[in-house]
Amino acid sequence: MKILLVGASGTIGKRLYDAFSPRHEVIKASATRSDVKVDFTDPASVKAFYEQVGPFDALVAVAGSGYIGPFDQTTEEHFYQGIRSKLMGQVNLVLYGQHYIKPGGSFTLTSGILADDPIRGGAVLTAINCAVNGFVVAASGELVAKGVRINAVSPGMVDDSVEELGPFFPGHTPAAMPRVIDAYVKSVEGIRTGEIIKVY
Amino acid sequence: MKILLVGASGTIGKRLYDAFSPRHEVIKASATRSDVKVDFTDPASVKAFYEQVGPFDALVAVAGSGYIGPFDQTTEEHFYQGIRSKLMGQVNLVLYGQHYIKPGGSFTLTSGILADDPIRGGAVLTAINCAVNGFVVAASGELVAKGVRINAVSPGMVDDSVEELGPFFPGHTPAAMPRVIDAYVKSVEGIRTGEIIKVY
Repeated sequence: MKILLVGASGTIGKRLYDAFSPRHEVIKASATRSDVKVDFTDPASVKAFYEQVGPFDALVAVAGSGYIGPFDQTTEEHFYQGIRSKLMGQVNLVLYGQHYIKPGGSFTLTSGILADDPIRGGAVLTAINCAVNGFVVAASGELVAKGVRINAVSPGMVDDSVEELGPFFPGHTPAAMPRVIDAYVKSVEGIRTGEIIKVY
Repeated sequence: MKILLVGASGTIGKRLYDAFSPRHEVIKASATRSDVKVDFTDPASVKAFYEQVGPFDALVAVAGSGYIGPFDQTTEEHFYQGIRSKLMGQVNLVLYGQHYIKPGGSFTLTSGILADDPIRGGAVLTAINCAVNGFVVAASGELVAKGVRINAVSPGMVDDSVEELGPFFPGHTPAAMPRVIDAYVKSVEGIRTGEIIKVY
């Protein structure tokens, strides 16, 4: 398969490259640090990206971030930072990618455990992860007629991030990275669609 | 109680006024057609609204809309129209209202059945309703220390809207308006928090 990996330079993205590249053609993309540049917050950049890479079999997105901080100081702009990035960035990849993906292809987006299990200061990410999950389920019903699948992987706090993120996630059992990678492989190489593949 | 009703001129809002006003002080607010004007897409307007009305016991939001249309023609801007309105409009009411609400007070937002049960052309609203639900659950954990509750009512297509919306909702059993109104009453006058009160 020809797999577009958006967010290839991130914690999970690097591991996904190692997992997929031995048996697939993987095109690494990210905002600044990869072979192919794409600013997924900008529809023009997203369209240019798809024009550049051409028809593809799978897109995997593991990019996007959102504010974590005191709820009583959270502003509209804190929300929009995350909305532009993790929500609409990923949505844009699907909205515009649907016109370039091959029949039989798939999209795999990334949400996260905060959709189900909020933490202090994490309201932005909970809302965004829920929106990504909802979008995936709705889009799956729209894309089936094209023979295209779409799923989300919803990882827990991955074990590689415990040092950085652990204090924000009291009582969260870290998700083992190999299980997280397996979830993406299942989405790309399996048959299901409209699934939120939870790794927690 | 002093209840702020944002979206007072809408299909559900009018009925909520009738339900609450016999036994509460209800302040009707909306963008253009009510006693008090508030543009909930604008934090400055939201803050001015709260300054104008003063401390309150409950805020009920039944406002906001989102694009319904062909998925393969859906654009980023279609998403942002709904995000600015039904998602961030309601979020703004909470982010800024938390500094004005009385201890023991409550927020009640509105999501909708599309969060669970997508329809053709409804991906924007599914994503937004999921985000509203997620926000409510996350915010409930933040607001409990202030003695403030927050819930969402998630109505099905209400029976009053069947003529207008029925063709978009094949196979959906309309939700009886009295049950929808009851859900808001439960949220405002009951004790629960972080609940998505589903009327379907």
